[in-house]
Amino acid sequence: MVCWPSFARKRINMAKEKDQNQNKRTELQELGEFGLIDRIAGQFTDRQPDTRVGIGDDAAVLDTGGDKLTVISSDLLTEGIHFDLSYFPVKHLGYKAVVVNVSDIAAMNAIPAHITVNLAVSNRFSLEAIDEFYAGVRAACDEYNIDLIGGDTSSSAAGLFISVTAVGYVEEDKLTLRSGASDKEIICVTGDLGGAYMGLQVLAREKQVYMANPDMQPKLDKYEYMVGRQLKPEARMDIVHELRDLGVVPTAMIDVSDGLASELLHLSKHNKMALRVYEENLPIDNQTYEAAVEFNLDPVTCVLNGGEDYELLFTVRQADYDKLKKHADIHFIGHMAKGDDRPGLVTKNNTLVPLQAQGWTHFKS
Amino acid sequence: MVCWPSFARKRINMAKEKDQNQNKRTELQELGEFGLIDRIAGQFTDRQPDTRVGIGDDAAVLDTGGDKLTVISSDLLTEGIHFDLSYFPVKHLGYKAVVVNVSDIAAMNAIPAHITVNLAVSNRFSLEAIDEFYAGVRAACDEYNIDLIGGDTSSSAAGLFISVTAVGYVEEDKLTLRSGASDKEIICVTGDLGGAYMGLQVLAREKQVYMANPDMQPKLDKYEYMVGRQLKPEARMDIVHELRDLGVVPTAMIDVSDGLASELLHLSKHNKMALRVYEENLPIDNQTYEAAVEFNLDPVTCVLNGGEDYELLFTVRQADYDKLKKHADIHFIGHMAKGDDRPGLVTKNNTLVPLQAQGWTHFKS
Repeated sequence: MVCWPSFARKRINMAKEKDQNQNKRTELQELGEFGLIDRIAGQFTDRQPDTRVGIGDDAAVLDTGGDKLTVISSDLLTEGIHFDLSYFPVKHLGYKAVVVNVSDIAAMNAIPAHITVNLAVSNRFSLEAIDEFYAGVRAACDEYNIDLIGGDTSSSAAGLFISVTAVGYVEEDKLTLRSGASDKEIICVTGDLGGAYMGLQVLAREKQVYMANPDMQPKLDKYEYMVGRQLKPEARMDIVHELRDLGVVPTAMIDVSDGLASELLHLSKHNKMALRVYEENLPIDNQTYEAAVEFNLDPVTCVLNGGEDYELLFTVRQADYDKLKKHADIHFIGHMAKGDDRPGLVTKNNTLVPLQAQGWTHFKS
Repeated sequence: MVCWPSFARKRINMAKEKDQNQNKRTELQELGEFGLIDRIAGQFTDRQPDTRVGIGDDAAVLDTGGDKLTVISSDLLTEGIHFDLSYFPVKHLGYKAVVVNVSDIAAMNAIPAHITVNLAVSNRFSLEAIDEFYAGVRAACDEYNIDLIGGDTSSSAAGLFISVTAVGYVEEDKLTLRSGASDKEIICVTGDLGGAYMGLQVLAREKQVYMANPDMQPKLDKYEYMVGRQLKPEARMDIVHELRDLGVVPTAMIDVSDGLASELLHLSKHNKMALRVYEENLPIDNQTYEAAVEFNLDPVTCVLNGGEDYELLFTVRQADYDKLKKHADIHFIGHMAKGDDRPGLVTKNNTLVPLQAQGWTHFKS
């Protein structure tokens, strides 16, 4: 157990001890987000009998004794890290904060039902801005048929912080984890990738233009699709429902929030096997492709490491291929592969390139 | 539905529009926390059939179809508002972040089972500090028999932000809301009040002393109890279990987080009736009383408006009084009273004083 007040005393004197402790300081970026999550998970053990899945999947799974399992996911959005208020409308932020959590529920093949929203705002926010934020939350609740059931509002000394927890339900036989895939199963991804990332590049550039010359109108028309992907993402609940209608239960699933490469590495790790994806099968929108070229970025890198697309990445049995092959928005990008070699990308000129996780770089100083 | 990118464009041009919109700006402190919660709640309607209780109680209540109801509560702790890291040890912060949520679950007469923890930290935090934080979370999980089932870690541009969501369970016939009390029922409060507030005053004073002379050792021994109430509060799960053992189900309950007066006003509002509490029955610890006098503060004001005590305030039927009267840690401070007059405090010299909610002043500039 923790004790006091010797602890408080120690803390108050901590400034003096700083020099001695300097050699014990480990920077967070040395570990990265996933290293940190693994470290935290390793420090805790589950004791509640109804905890089916704890830390480490897109959502936790609880067996509360009803017909369905309960899934719970929680995500943070912080100003200056996840969004820049100079181009992110507060209403869209409310919408997106819900969507990123719904997307985690979708990744469990579950149906979202409830959210709590915690919001910390500084004095520079007016009541009208808060109303805008909740108008966005409400729009997302309407879109995804969710109840806002609680939360907390607080002021913050600096910056806007949003923390959303989503609750959903899934039948036992439809629950899909990150693990569960087998050798040779088909890897599918929905929609197209890299758009949200390119949208962010466009918005950041327009901000620079605007700051240099405030009378200049930002030119966004040509990038409308990408800007929309960044400012108003959607969770793929449509796919979750369609898979049910088609009678397909994915064997493993994860949502694409940190970038396809990062999620493929998760898929490989959770299933303890390798995988192959094929460059020629990676879905990218024409506008995204052209913008990447314009920005001197490699379109494939945008697809692999862009992040924030909130598409679904999942595996299906080969037997289910026929049920899905005509679906316009599901792309078959590769397959699981027995073995412990690094997950690989087969390029258009048939070279095997090991996948790199760009992933999470928030903690870089 | 929200739309873009005209919205983004509008946002980018918002700086120009500031002058015109100036007259539409409403400051958050005009509304206060409870006004803001009421406003948000009024903008949402529940649609999910399993939402039993949404926004507005200590926790939301869901009927997920199992033997018990599920209760969910979510709270934020933000640096510079809820805590000052110069005297709040990070480990205690992890402990307290869990406790404040467990206390909300306790206030539903429910048993906590799971938490998710979202944490945003700036670069000045080392891995060792994060480990300390989670050591505090783990100590609280051990104390309250809870599983950490998920969460999110992110960096923040400035300041430490903690958002915890707690999940608990309660049998249908034991669920206790803020509403449910009847005329003449007895108002009870556990423990003693005002200690956490006085602990905060002591810590703030010692910080000033330390800043003026860093070689000075803080003198906390005399204030040990109060400092402990501030730095290591506990949720009254012991009371929840004891009430079950005694066969008493409170008719209404709320936890004392914002101060007794504020919670009594909630009790009155939720039960649509007045109430009376008696100054001579308000529980205050001797150390707290003496410290208040030393700090030139009115001890009764500390008890009524101090906040952060995390005791339980509840009402019981008169018939249950005999079962509770010998409990050393339950105090009978007043009674519910039909009528729509303002909840009142009867002072020691028999004057009736209307209760004022100090409550939430975070948004004051």
